[in-house]
Amino acid sequence: MPPRIVLSALPDIPIVKPGDDLATLILESLERAALQLTEGDILVVTQKIVSKAEGRLIHLSTVEPSAEAHLLAKESGKDPRLAELILRESRRVLRTRPGLVIVEHRLGFVCANGGIDRSNVRGEGKDPDGWVLLLPENPDGSAQLLRDRIRARTSADVGILIIDSHGRAWRQGTVGVAIGLAGMPGLLDLRGTADLFGYRLQATEVAVADELAAACSLLMGQAAEGTPVVHVRGVRFDRREGSLRDLLRPADQDLFR
Amino acid sequence: MPPRIVLSALPDIPIVKPGDDLATLILESLERAALQLTEGDILVVTQKIVSKAEGRLIHLSTVEPSAEAHLLAKESGKDPRLAELILRESRRVLRTRPGLVIVEHRLGFVCANGGIDRSNVRGEGKDPDGWVLLLPENPDGSAQLLRDRIRARTSADVGILIIDSHGRAWRQGTVGVAIGLAGMPGLLDLRGTADLFGYRLQATEVAVADELAAACSLLMGQAAEGTPVVHVRGVRFDRREGSLRDLLRPADQDLFR
Repeated sequence: MPPRIVLSALPDIPIVKPGDDLATLILESLERAALQLTEGDILVVTQKIVSKAEGRLIHLSTVEPSAEAHLLAKESGKDPRLAELILRESRRVLRTRPGLVIVEHRLGFVCANGGIDRSNVRGEGKDPDGWVLLLPENPDGSAQLLRDRIRARTSADVGILIIDSHGRAWRQGTVGVAIGLAGMPGLLDLRGTADLFGYRLQATEVAVADELAAACSLLMGQAAEGTPVVHVRGVRFDRREGSLRDLLRPADQDLFR
Repeated sequence: MPPRIVLSALPDIPIVKPGDDLATLILESLERAALQLTEGDILVVTQKIVSKAEGRLIHLSTVEPSAEAHLLAKESGKDPRLAELILRESRRVLRTRPGLVIVEHRLGFVCANGGIDRSNVRGEGKDPDGWVLLLPENPDGSAQLLRDRIRARTSADVGILIIDSHGRAWRQGTVGVAIGLAGMPGLLDLRGTADLFGYRLQATEVAVADELAAACSLLMGQAAEGTPVVHVRGVRFDRREGSLRDLLRPADQDLFR
């Protein structure tokens, strides 16, 4: 059989609430799917359920906008309280136009609206639509914790990828990208590798974690939480530690920021 | 069984030469892999073998650099003849620094070095390392031709994606991206779709063709032509026509160009 990669949507993961243990929900779903984890498998998890489990929900009524937030709200047309959260989640604002704020997030990547999500986060109370969801505090740490918990209960050491959907410069449409990883590298370094004819490849580092994030995004869809976790088998990677930092181009080396 | 996507590397595709019929090479490999094409399958093909089959090889000794090319060569440290080809393949140069020229390609996307490749293209003659490979003249057309030929011989109407590896703004590492497509859309439009709680999603178009390109790049590797074609089963997509144009953000709507 030719080399292949199999991506499987984990079935029937319930809507995640603050405090839920994702390892338990994932292991129960793997059992339903009759999938047994083995070395080299990777679990790819959407940011939304990690953030929810970690209680990163905030109600806009609790947010007091600063003067800077009022200015950003005016430029972008966004709720001043949301603008305040965007500023708190960001190192700096790169571009603003009506409906859109593009920032350098405190985690280091460039994304729209501070990575803050309003879909699929309806909550309780008087104004159930006032809830928004921030990204995990430390997605690499969240990935490592999930890896440790799964290893403790299955003895399988799997790679973990936490992903989100980002827009891009130059091209239309969002793609899945990695925002946290554990047990797998972000980049595959081919520099110095010879090609078919012995020509040395230059400047070739492949963003394997982002490629895998994009692959799993195909199965997850975007509209619902129906498929928040994808099990991956068949990706060959070095068993070394990785970090979101691997994937971030430093601002001073970026020709397009 | 849960929904899944299976990516299979097509085995033993020989080194492609100008004039080769890719449909034949692919169908022979599918037979070796005991894979039978069905509706909804997608074949993802690396740009290199499409360009080679189309004879897009050029020897640098045949290229006369212009004054502009000499200037670009000086700024970038590249061979003036290569700089000439980069200029011919581009609408305009966006950024230059030693070792790197980033252009808006004549096909509309932003990429390094005019999409011109020196690896895996050793040729014949006195200076076998002087060969370079240009991108296909019209990748959407190449994809459509391949689709038509495969349909004629198997009666299966499959999606075709021609992909390359591009660097990105903001993030390290290359990822696979679509540069030509037929029989499948570039974008999946989720605007107006309701989420779990009926909240309308805004501004969500997913670049499914790029996500699939990234996924297949994981199997192809980068260094050799060992896996130039990947067979994909399980991606759900609208059976409508797509084009590279779907994926290109117009320059005047791009905040980072």
